[in-house]
Amino acid sequence: MSRFFSVRHNNLKAYTPGEQPKDMKYIKLNTNESPFPPPASVAEAAADQARLAELYSDPECTLLREKMSEVYGVPAENIVMGNGSDEILALIFSAFGDENSPFVFPDITYSFYKVFADLYHVPYTEIPLDDSLMVHTEDYENIGKNIVIANPNAPTGQALSAEDIERIVCSNRNNIVVIDEAYVDFGAVSSVTLTQKYDNLIVCGTFSKSRSMAGARLGFAIADRDIIKDLNTMRYSTNPYNVNRMTMAAGIAALSERDYFLKNCRDITETRKYTEEHLLRLGFSVLPSRANFLFIKSDKIGGKRLYEKLKEAGILVRHFDSERIKEYIRVTIGTRDQMKIFLDETEKILGEES
Amino acid sequence: MSRFFSVRHNNLKAYTPGEQPKDMKYIKLNTNESPFPPPASVAEAAADQARLAELYSDPECTLLREKMSEVYGVPAENIVMGNGSDEILALIFSAFGDENSPFVFPDITYSFYKVFADLYHVPYTEIPLDDSLMVHTEDYENIGKNIVIANPNAPTGQALSAEDIERIVCSNRNNIVVIDEAYVDFGAVSSVTLTQKYDNLIVCGTFSKSRSMAGARLGFAIADRDIIKDLNTMRYSTNPYNVNRMTMAAGIAALSERDYFLKNCRDITETRKYTEEHLLRLGFSVLPSRANFLFIKSDKIGGKRLYEKLKEAGILVRHFDSERIKEYIRVTIGTRDQMKIFLDETEKILGEES
Repeated sequence: MSRFFSVRHNNLKAYTPGEQPKDMKYIKLNTNESPFPPPASVAEAAADQARLAELYSDPECTLLREKMSEVYGVPAENIVMGNGSDEILALIFSAFGDENSPFVFPDITYSFYKVFADLYHVPYTEIPLDDSLMVHTEDYENIGKNIVIANPNAPTGQALSAEDIERIVCSNRNNIVVIDEAYVDFGAVSSVTLTQKYDNLIVCGTFSKSRSMAGARLGFAIADRDIIKDLNTMRYSTNPYNVNRMTMAAGIAALSERDYFLKNCRDITETRKYTEEHLLRLGFSVLPSRANFLFIKSDKIGGKRLYEKLKEAGILVRHFDSERIKEYIRVTIGTRDQMKIFLDETEKILGEES
Repeated sequence: MSRFFSVRHNNLKAYTPGEQPKDMKYIKLNTNESPFPPPASVAEAAADQARLAELYSDPECTLLREKMSEVYGVPAENIVMGNGSDEILALIFSAFGDENSPFVFPDITYSFYKVFADLYHVPYTEIPLDDSLMVHTEDYENIGKNIVIANPNAPTGQALSAEDIERIVCSNRNNIVVIDEAYVDFGAVSSVTLTQKYDNLIVCGTFSKSRSMAGARLGFAIADRDIIKDLNTMRYSTNPYNVNRMTMAAGIAALSERDYFLKNCRDITETRKYTEEHLLRLGFSVLPSRANFLFIKSDKIGGKRLYEKLKEAGILVRHFDSERIKEYIRVTIGTRDQMKIFLDETEKILGEES
């Protein structure tokens, strides 16, 4: 810390991203990336735009938002694009949070929500997941505070139904409800259509998971047009040209390849089922997942130890050093071949432990 | 505005970017872009990385920072990269500004500084440029507040010497001094080497102007390592993966093409001289510019009217509706051919006015 750092940030603890190792080649099942590359048209679109990079990108992302409108079935004026959904979430916390507009979110969820709240000095309450690590819908009804729920939740993978979400949204009409749908395409139900009915609902999404574009950085929010206006006010006060030309064109190309996208989502959900069945046979507890990862634990080995043993074997998974979930590891669903190796190594490790 | 927007932002006035017109094809001399495309290797590098876009980008920008270190002659630990220099400036204002750490900057300068200060509720004072629209160095010596100076300044184009900068930096050792060098490569002297001597100096830069990459969004700050740590704390609290893969690789490619970069800078400074001489002959006042634009006014026509007449003729320049400079227009230096057309049209407009 320098002697110039503002006292405002005395207690700020930054987010810790998953390991991005440089020391060796791992099977990388730790940051919920897609095992499939983006479609070939994405690279062509990026190259075409890189050739025009001397000109600023369109701060309104017009063409991309028009394509989004077509794919998501909502007007373009209900959409704002971000440099990843992390940027979108930062805009949301800073736009709608303050001393008198606190946030609530589950105690076990995407750990960045807490960082945003701390950064912007927005008070927050963490609401415990129930004993089965599910979001307990009734806890959020009529709560009278801004709400953020990842659906499916991370790192548990469990999802709420559209009816559950609607109950939360319509019982809190004077507060913002943010549904973070980073993982929705792997089997959960999206709340995007509800944004046309409720002016207090924001649905966030990302191209990082189901659309194979984590490294291109593209996220979005869909909401009532006045909410989108507020998010644009924040965006034009921090970084108006937030989405670069290459990513913008790559996004349009990715959205145009619907069959490839659906095939990849189907592959991942099938491989998730395959992996889950094997893990159950190995005696693991596996939370029912609607995401591209599984959250699992075994009586035979602790979460931290399993993470370490897998890392020694060249497989990266994610372990969270947090009391309620420290016996678990989170395993991203890769290709069938990657999961076979993961399962073989896991079986071997369990054998050595007993 | 939605009914949810925080009262914190009641008085926030967002930044207004230059026009990015979609209605017709203009000669675009309004947002200080380069008239030259990036080198061909940039598109190849971007395409290569787009093919790997399913994996997150390196949040530390390691390879790019190593290349930056080589080009700028400072250790990589003294460098942080951003999604454009606007993001870097936002991080700086939020990291180092607060109620007791106010900022000062010139009354006529990049209008975004004021927006950042307002957004983060950082008090600020605007210090008037002198009568020749120059930064008056003595006004900043021993001022005891954080300072931001664009050098060359925008929209005036006028530059301070390295000695002037050093006097400001070393007379304010308990405050941050930010030198925004967006336009430094067109003939001003960089203060980057001073960052190795003073721990309170931050030099910002961008790939948007001299490196033909406005649409790729890449900026940076160079400073003492503790300052860089603070900026990284802010970055990891908002958007750790802020620079995408394509832009990162494009940046490395652009930095590797030194001859092309130098040739473009030379072309622009020569065309600036050519344009200035013609404008003087037409009776314009032209501020001495070290940037890729000229700030000019004529007794024969007001700034707003000249802007409008040029727009009618298919040429976009920038006019600022601000009292002290409303008689001026800012004209980006394009290619020699573009400037010939601009000069011809300007001469024609002046003829019609008299």
